[in-house]
This record gives sequence, structure tokens and C-alpha cells, in this order.
Amino acid sequence: MSVTQKQLYEKLKQIQPVCEKSMQRARAHWNTVAKPLGSLGKLEQAVIQIAGISRSENVDLSKKGLIIMCADNGVVAEGVTQTGQEVTAVVAENFLDLRSCVAIMCRDTGTDIFPIDIGMAVDTPRVERRKIAYGTKNMYREPAMSGDEAVAAIETGIQLVKEKAEAGYQILATGEMGIGNTTTSSAVTSVLLDVPVETVTGRGAGLSSAGLTRKIEVIKAAVAKHQPNPQDPIDVLAKVGGFDIAGLAGVFLGGALYHVPVVADGFISTVAALIAIRLEPKAADYILASHVSKEPAGAMLLKAIVKTPFLTCDMCLGEGSGAVALFPILDMAVHIYREMSPFDEAGFGTYVPLE
Amino acid sequence: MSVTQKQLYEKLKQIQPVCEKSMQRARAHWNTVAKPLGSLGKLEQAVIQIAGISRSENVDLSKKGLIIMCADNGVVAEGVTQTGQEVTAVVAENFLDLRSCVAIMCRDTGTDIFPIDIGMAVDTPRVERRKIAYGTKNMYREPAMSGDEAVAAIETGIQLVKEKAEAGYQILATGEMGIGNTTTSSAVTSVLLDVPVETVTGRGAGLSSAGLTRKIEVIKAAVAKHQPNPQDPIDVLAKVGGFDIAGLAGVFLGGALYHVPVVADGFISTVAALIAIRLEPKAADYILASHVSKEPAGAMLLKAIVKTPFLTCDMCLGEGSGAVALFPILDMAVHIYREMSPFDEAGFGTYVPLE
Repeated sequence: MSVTQKQLYEKLKQIQPVCEKSMQRARAHWNTVAKPLGSLGKLEQAVIQIAGISRSENVDLSKKGLIIMCADNGVVAEGVTQTGQEVTAVVAENFLDLRSCVAIMCRDTGTDIFPIDIGMAVDTPRVERRKIAYGTKNMYREPAMSGDEAVAAIETGIQLVKEKAEAGYQILATGEMGIGNTTTSSAVTSVLLDVPVETVTGRGAGLSSAGLTRKIEVIKAAVAKHQPNPQDPIDVLAKVGGFDIAGLAGVFLGGALYHVPVVADGFISTVAALIAIRLEPKAADYILASHVSKEPAGAMLLKAIVKTPFLTCDMCLGEGSGAVALFPILDMAVHIYREMSPFDEAGFGTYVPLE
Repeated sequence: MSVTQKQLYEKLKQIQPVCEKSMQRARAHWNTVAKPLGSLGKLEQAVIQIAGISRSENVDLSKKGLIIMCADNGVVAEGVTQTGQEVTAVVAENFLDLRSCVAIMCRDTGTDIFPIDIGMAVDTPRVERRKIAYGTKNMYREPAMSGDEAVAAIETGIQLVKEKAEAGYQILATGEMGIGNTTTSSAVTSVLLDVPVETVTGRGAGLSSAGLTRKIEVIKAAVAKHQPNPQDPIDVLAKVGGFDIAGLAGVFLGGALYHVPVVADGFISTVAALIAIRLEPKAADYILASHVSKEPAGAMLLKAIVKTPFLTCDMCLGEGSGAVALFPILDMAVHIYREMSPFDEAGFGTYVPLE
């Protein structure tokens, strides 16, 4: 194990369980709200979980952010995608101009948007640069990155959450942009969940049937060639992953280190959540699921991280769109939690169940 | 068949299919939006459906309303609920003062809230009065209402939508408040879906196990006594239904008559949607589902009306809370649909699939 890997593992040992006392107090507060007990279902659970994460029953989600990890993938050279790498940088810049779906959703929900160049093949004028390299290598021929690069990308994600926590962000959504990243995500999922490549590989952004066949073939070849060790998430990331996935794994771990709830998005983001949890199981309690992706691996990955979705809208857009879609729902839950009259003011007795 | 029933059926014959041309144009417009085709899943489908309902691809949901049918149920005398009928009126008034969960959700989403007294046991100072009667009769002993009363409640719902359409409302959510209305809804569901009472009866607002047993017993007895005709939704409503369910069935039918999309909420609202569709199958295309209730019949009823939920939050609050929770998601979809750059302006080529 390299020095940087050792340092990362040392850091992750600092992750603490969520605060049970804050969760108890949040639960007790919900029970004073004038409505049938538990009738807001997962919305109540989410507020309780956020109380545990933030160490306070005074839950507040006024300041929200979306971190979009943008990176390119060398494997695109093998024809596994419909569009070229140049699209990654164009879309990354579009995030800053309301020229992408998720940017409109962020505006609607009062969410600040942070596209991050963690490994795009080109530089762009305005996207924040935290570049590990100019895209990964082509995993069909060689490992996508070195172990140290994977660690550096994870550390970048952790560092970003530290900065956002210091800036007062109370919840973060995760997104990604990178042509070819459903290919890398399928490879990582296949290895980590020990399932056939075919069952976790879909059409991404509209691939043809011939394209899908080629995509599966390339993933199988890359996994067979490099033999990533399923017990070692960093080895898997390095050999068949991407900088975006590694960076997002870091964001989930950063949430656990700095007590910020982090919302998983769809396929790629949930792969990153799985890696974070494999690196440090206590990170799981700091993660909220949002939706279930239409990509075939979406439901499988949610099951693997033992989360259920709030939204079942058959989305598969990426960019963090599913995670940001959850924000107005969470906002409503928090407003009810904070503002609703307790039973004694609402003019009727408590709904305490009889057993 | 009574004169009023005949008149209702005559009116329902005027319901037309949704506009295919508007849907085609909306579909074509989505395909110009710079994102992978279909990647917003059900959100795209919802916008297309709303185009068909409103007869225009210029979809706009700026003006939103929630109609909450408030009514009492005589069957409460049989001890099938945890709280008494007096709570219905208290909560109905609370809707107007941000003292209920859904009122806060309406404020958050820019939705106007319309509690309607369609049959509360008492009068209240501020809730709009469209009362059919002071609560239903106790269905354990006699039919809940007459056939003409059921028709009058449906006509009230239709009339309300006419007024809201004239006032410019572009989408309506459905909600209800009425102690005892999961009892009536279970009875109606059991008859219309021909399933055992046990499988469609839950604890409502936190009933004890003994209470649940009693609730099932009462429903079974009422159904056995009155033998509602499952082929005649008005007969079912009259014998074991409630004014809230009948009124909401009218709201769904009104949406179909006046070209306003109507969003179903949970258990009780979806029972009403089923009745509307049984009365006139073309009404189905004017209805959007929102969430799936935690009440046991929730998923069954969605299947019966051939809809899938956008939200899976295990809510079972009623009041229209699940339907209103969908509004910010629909708003985001419509904003993307209206504002997003077409491909040619976004700086990259189209994502047209290769097959």
C-alpha cells in the first residue's frame, strides 16, 4: 500500500457514527407535530437522519449545493459512446449558464452549482480546476489511472466537502458529467457486486444495439485484462474506474468526515457511494438516496448500499438531476418539521397510537 | 336510474380523448432539448400528457390549486377510528392558516389551497360550503347516502373544476379530510376491485390492532348488508362511500370535461380516480398519479388505474400531501421543457439514437 493510500485510510478512521441523541430528539420533535404519527414516511426519516449527521435536531437545509465531477475517460477511444469527449467540456461550461437541465433545477431549488474539472481532457475557461490528469487512460489497453491518482481524486472530493462545510453548506447533492462514464461505472459495479457485465450495462445516452454489444465486450476485456481486486475499492477504481467516480466517492466520505448529508443521484453517483461505503462502512449513514435510475444497475446498486429511493421517475440523465429533484421535497419536510403547530396548539388531542 | 343520474351520464359522454396532436408536438419539442433522449423519463411523459390534456404544447403550470374535499362519515359511530368527527372541521379550518402539513407544502410550491365542506358534520366559519348533508349516515346500519346525494357530490366536484378552469388554474391536486374515510375507501376498494376487505384495510391514522379488527368487521358487515353492485360505481358510493370520495371523483371527471390535469394523491383520492374511470374510461388520460400510499390498498389501486407513482416516500397523510409534493418536480420538468437550449444552440450535435 502506498503512502498516500495509508494516509487516506488513516483519515477515514476518523469517521464517527451519526449522533443518536440528535436523532432521538428529532424523532421526539416529529411526534409533537399535529399529524398522524409517521405519516410523512421517509420524509420524517430523512429529517431524523440529517439531525444525526449534522449533530443537531435544529435541522436546516437553507444552504444547498451540487458538486458535479467532470472528467473524461480514455475508453471512449473504443467506440463505447455515441458522442466524443469534446462534449464533456461543453456541457461542463453550460452548467454555469442555465444551459443544462440540472442548472435549471438548481435555480428552481435555490441550489448553488459547482462543476469541478477533476479530469477533463481539455481545460475550460470557467470550470473550477482540480484536475488529476487530462482524462484517464484507455482501460481496454492499460489501467485507467494509478492507485495514487485514484487516491488523489478521492482526496479532492473530501477536500471539496471540507470547503463547502466551512462555507456553510448544509446538504450536498452529487452529480457527474463525463462521456464514457456509464462504461466505467458498469465495470466497477460488475467487479464490486460480482455480477455479469451484461446485467449492469445499459445504453447510457442512447447507444445503439451494436454499440451496446461493443460496450459490454470492452468492459469484459478490461476487467479480464486487469483483474481488479474486488476487496480493494481503490484497485478497482484505478484499473477500470474514472476520476469522476473517485471524486464523488471522496464527496461521500467528506460528508461523513465533516458531518454534511450527501445525496446520491443515479447510477454513477451510487457506484461512488458504494465505493465510499466499502472504504468505510460508517459512511453509509451520511448518505441519502434520491431516485432509482432507469439504467439497469440503478436498483441493484441501491440494494447494495441498503437504501430505497424517494423518486421513481425513470430518469437517467445524470448531472445530479435526480438528487437535486429531491431537494424541494426535503425542503417541504424540513419546513413542516420546523413550522407545524404542535398538537396542543392545533386544537385537538394527540394521535398517540393505542399500542 | 334517476333523472339526476341520467343527466350525469349524459354530461360524461361529452368527455373527449386527450389531444394527440398536442402530444406529438410536445414530444417533438422534447427531442430538440439538449439532453439524452428520454432521459427525464416520466417527467417528459407527464409534460406530454399535460399537453394532450390542455390541447396545447405550450405547457404552463404557473397557476396551481389543491381541492380538499372535507366530509364526515356516520360509520365513525362504530369505533373504526381513533379520533372523533370534531377533528374534521378543526383540520379543515387549519388548512387556511398554515396549521396543517399540506398548507405548508402549498405555500412552498405556490399552490392555492381550497378546502371544501362537501359534507362535514358541522358548519365552520371559513371553509367554503358546498355541503350535500351533515355527514353521511352510518353504513353499518343503513346506506351512507342516497344515489341522488352521490350524484350531487360528483356534480359538485365537476362544478368546482369548471370554476377553477375559468379562473385560470392549469393543474389541480386532490386531497381529502374526513375522519373515517379510510374505512369508506377500503369498503369501496374491496367492492370495486373484488378483493377481500382484509387486504385493503389498514390502520389509517394509527389505529390499534383491536381497532383494525373492528374496522374490518364493520366494513364486511356493511358490504354484506347493502350488497353494492360493483358494476355501478354510484351504487357503491351511495351504499358504502363518502361525500369526499364522491366529490373527488367529480373533480377527476371535471378535469376531463374542462381539460385540466388532475393529480391523484394517495389511497382515498385514488379510490375516487378509480370511480371516475369506471364512470367514464376516457377520464383516465386526464389523471396523473403522484405517490404510492403506505396504506395497503395504495399500490393495488394504482395498478387498477394503470398508473405508476413518481414518489415512493411511504407517506400516508392524506390532505393531498403526496399530490402537492409532486408539484415542484413537475415545475422543474416544465421549466426545462420551456427554457432549455435546443441542441443547435448548446454547442454540440444531436444525440439521435442510431436505431
